[in-house]
Amino acid sequence: MNTTSKSYGKMTSMNIDEIIKINKDSKREYEDIKAKNLKLNMARGKPCAEQLDLALGVLESLHARTEFDGSDGDDSRNYGVWDGLEEMRNIFSGMTGIPADSLILGNNSSLAMMFDSISKGYTHGYSGCEAWCKQSNVKFLCPSPGYDRHFAITEYFGIEMIPIPMLKTGPDMDIIERLVANDTSIKGCWCVPKYSNPTGITYSDEVVERFAKLKPAAKDFIIMWDNAYCVHDLSDTPDTLLNLFDECVKYGTEDNVLYFASTSKISFPGAGVAALGASKNNYSDLQKMLQTRSIGPDKLNQLRHIRFLHDVDGVKNLMQGHRGILEPKFDIVKDYLNNELSELGIANWSNPQGGYFINLDVMNGCAKRVVELCKNAGVILTDAGATFPYSLDPNDSNIRIAPTFPVLDELSQAMELLCVCVKLAASDKLMSDRV
Amino acid sequence: MNTTSKSYGKMTSMNIDEIIKINKDSKREYEDIKAKNLKLNMARGKPCAEQLDLALGVLESLHARTEFDGSDGDDSRNYGVWDGLEEMRNIFSGMTGIPADSLILGNNSSLAMMFDSISKGYTHGYSGCEAWCKQSNVKFLCPSPGYDRHFAITEYFGIEMIPIPMLKTGPDMDIIERLVANDTSIKGCWCVPKYSNPTGITYSDEVVERFAKLKPAAKDFIIMWDNAYCVHDLSDTPDTLLNLFDECVKYGTEDNVLYFASTSKISFPGAGVAALGASKNNYSDLQKMLQTRSIGPDKLNQLRHIRFLHDVDGVKNLMQGHRGILEPKFDIVKDYLNNELSELGIANWSNPQGGYFINLDVMNGCAKRVVELCKNAGVILTDAGATFPYSLDPNDSNIRIAPTFPVLDELSQAMELLCVCVKLAASDKLMSDRV
Repeated sequence: MNTTSKSYGKMTSMNIDEIIKINKDSKREYEDIKAKNLKLNMARGKPCAEQLDLALGVLESLHARTEFDGSDGDDSRNYGVWDGLEEMRNIFSGMTGIPADSLILGNNSSLAMMFDSISKGYTHGYSGCEAWCKQSNVKFLCPSPGYDRHFAITEYFGIEMIPIPMLKTGPDMDIIERLVANDTSIKGCWCVPKYSNPTGITYSDEVVERFAKLKPAAKDFIIMWDNAYCVHDLSDTPDTLLNLFDECVKYGTEDNVLYFASTSKISFPGAGVAALGASKNNYSDLQKMLQTRSIGPDKLNQLRHIRFLHDVDGVKNLMQGHRGILEPKFDIVKDYLNNELSELGIANWSNPQGGYFINLDVMNGCAKRVVELCKNAGVILTDAGATFPYSLDPNDSNIRIAPTFPVLDELSQAMELLCVCVKLAASDKLMSDRV
Repeated sequence: MNTTSKSYGKMTSMNIDEIIKINKDSKREYEDIKAKNLKLNMARGKPCAEQLDLALGVLESLHARTEFDGSDGDDSRNYGVWDGLEEMRNIFSGMTGIPADSLILGNNSSLAMMFDSISKGYTHGYSGCEAWCKQSNVKFLCPSPGYDRHFAITEYFGIEMIPIPMLKTGPDMDIIERLVANDTSIKGCWCVPKYSNPTGITYSDEVVERFAKLKPAAKDFIIMWDNAYCVHDLSDTPDTLLNLFDECVKYGTEDNVLYFASTSKISFPGAGVAALGASKNNYSDLQKMLQTRSIGPDKLNQLRHIRFLHDVDGVKNLMQGHRGILEPKFDIVKDYLNNELSELGIANWSNPQGGYFINLDVMNGCAKRVVELCKNAGVILTDAGATFPYSLDPNDSNIRIAPTFPVLDELSQAMELLCVCVKLAASDKLMSDRV
């Protein structure tokens, strides 16, 4: 992660008159923008319509009976093939580095596969251990800031969440190693290892290796490796992620991890294909659950994706199109932050090489205020705190910026407003601190 | 249900020489058929390719952006709309008689929605009661013979299954009412109320009304109303099913039922749309689970179905096409059974007016043998016993015939074999009984 390494020096070292001037200017600018009656929603990492247009080829009609034959001769319109079509598993294998025969395809939501995996631990346990619902005080590690929907799943099952600080190289592995070494009630850890949501960093090779080497006290420990942005590069110098699957084979820790990916942000968020990767033991364990739950996933949608994407090179070509649309949006966000805020030293932000988010840390105690100010002027951001377990940001400083959905002009308006709100909140805070 | 009301009279009242003759003839015929090296699978209720061709219009291409706009203006390619598109809920409403705003759409599997509903009871409970995993000795009522995949779900969660006899009017309500009245550990009941799998009967108005009036001791009692064959008529005199949703409103028992339906056997088994109906309380309870699990179901597949089916009349027209393909198949099965077995009085079978199955009851102690004999001659039937909880058919007499998938010629061959096997097993049994 490249963050602007400015300290909170400049505005904090101003005299009170200078701060009051910034405050007044910001207030005026804020009222001017508010008068425009904006109505923008930047809360979620949704692709924009132009991105979705790139994948329209997925939706070409299917007609002839021969088109429905899977490579095994099976009619893909009918029941069966619980783990999905081999050709689609091959595409995911190329994307994630997980062998195709270790992958299981789902329907349109990798989040649903994660929910089902946690639910499976809760109802039946992992690695032959007792179900989590029969154990007391089950806990999960939550590198934070992180993905709010991960935390919502753990919270739903009443699993206690332990926040783990995110460093520039990934979660703080010193803390994780220490915590899992002795506490059998810690059952797993959420991870978005590449272009992490929301910080945008990619786990370093050392961090991945340390996850592979992890020897938790709990035999039923599961790393939830959500590789949502594995091919979502936005730069000529994309990040690379060490292959955890291979590393775990080296260290004999295959059963400690479940892997997730999807085409939600490759083809269509509502109508893509999701995949789960697992060790042999976890695979057969999950097979029992999945085959009881359903006869199989939507194979016609897999067929559409196979026909359109062909292979991992097809995916990579498509992602170049996404980059063409998204890179200018990320640039607008970074330009506004650089131009409006870097001299004042009242915020830090990430410079991700891919993914869906830019991470903004404002002055401690100001995030909620900034999000509220934006909302009152018509721009919805992700709720402050949402990126932390129980929505509790200990510093009240983290804001997730999701630049993908708005058109360029709206994004500029929203960023102009956001920067004004950051200044307004910071100057208010500094003024009240000096009273 | 019309069953041939013959008693097991004729063959049982034969003298030993007559039985030996039938046995010898059957053995010879069996060996002749075996020599043909058949390879047919009649195990599952799968639609045939001709049926699937009827719905190819679902798979016409989608192109223009305007095509993706839901009635709320939302782009159906993107995230959102957790409960599904209103137009598709309207179609299910027309099919099931459940108000559209009481319906929630899933992906391609109503079985998965049933699994998730049972899982929800297990992990979080219903009606504010304690989760089933925290209660001891939880039980479910299982009208039998019934649907094996229902029983597999309850078994997966370790829920004790209590078989309930199936009468010609539906489950034996006297027994059900007596059992649920005092036992708080009985948490629900599986039902396929129309063209029941496998007996083909439709619950009488009285049975439906008694379900609506049911006052179980358990406040968290859930009737799993799997209306899989709601529009699957194969006759000019189709069965009609009283609307349980309306009945429950009358008696104030809305929270006792979850409703399920799908287009699996209307459009495509692997790529249809599933729906769940619920009372207001259950709806908001399930909403929390479903919104935590996934951002929403595949709306593009709903859009395809809306465009092709339009409304419930479109569904009914399509089902006429299915009937045209299926009715001759059901006739072949009934003709073989009538011609080969009715005089001998060694079997009873159903004469369903719709659905997917014909139910065959052979002589007690013979079902496993018949299925085994068929298998050894190349025809796979549903496992004997599969239609009972724990695969335990107390009489070893029930065989589920699934005539939909094979082509006519193969179905004739399979039925010829099946009838020979029924005679062979019955004569063997009668001969050994007399030793």
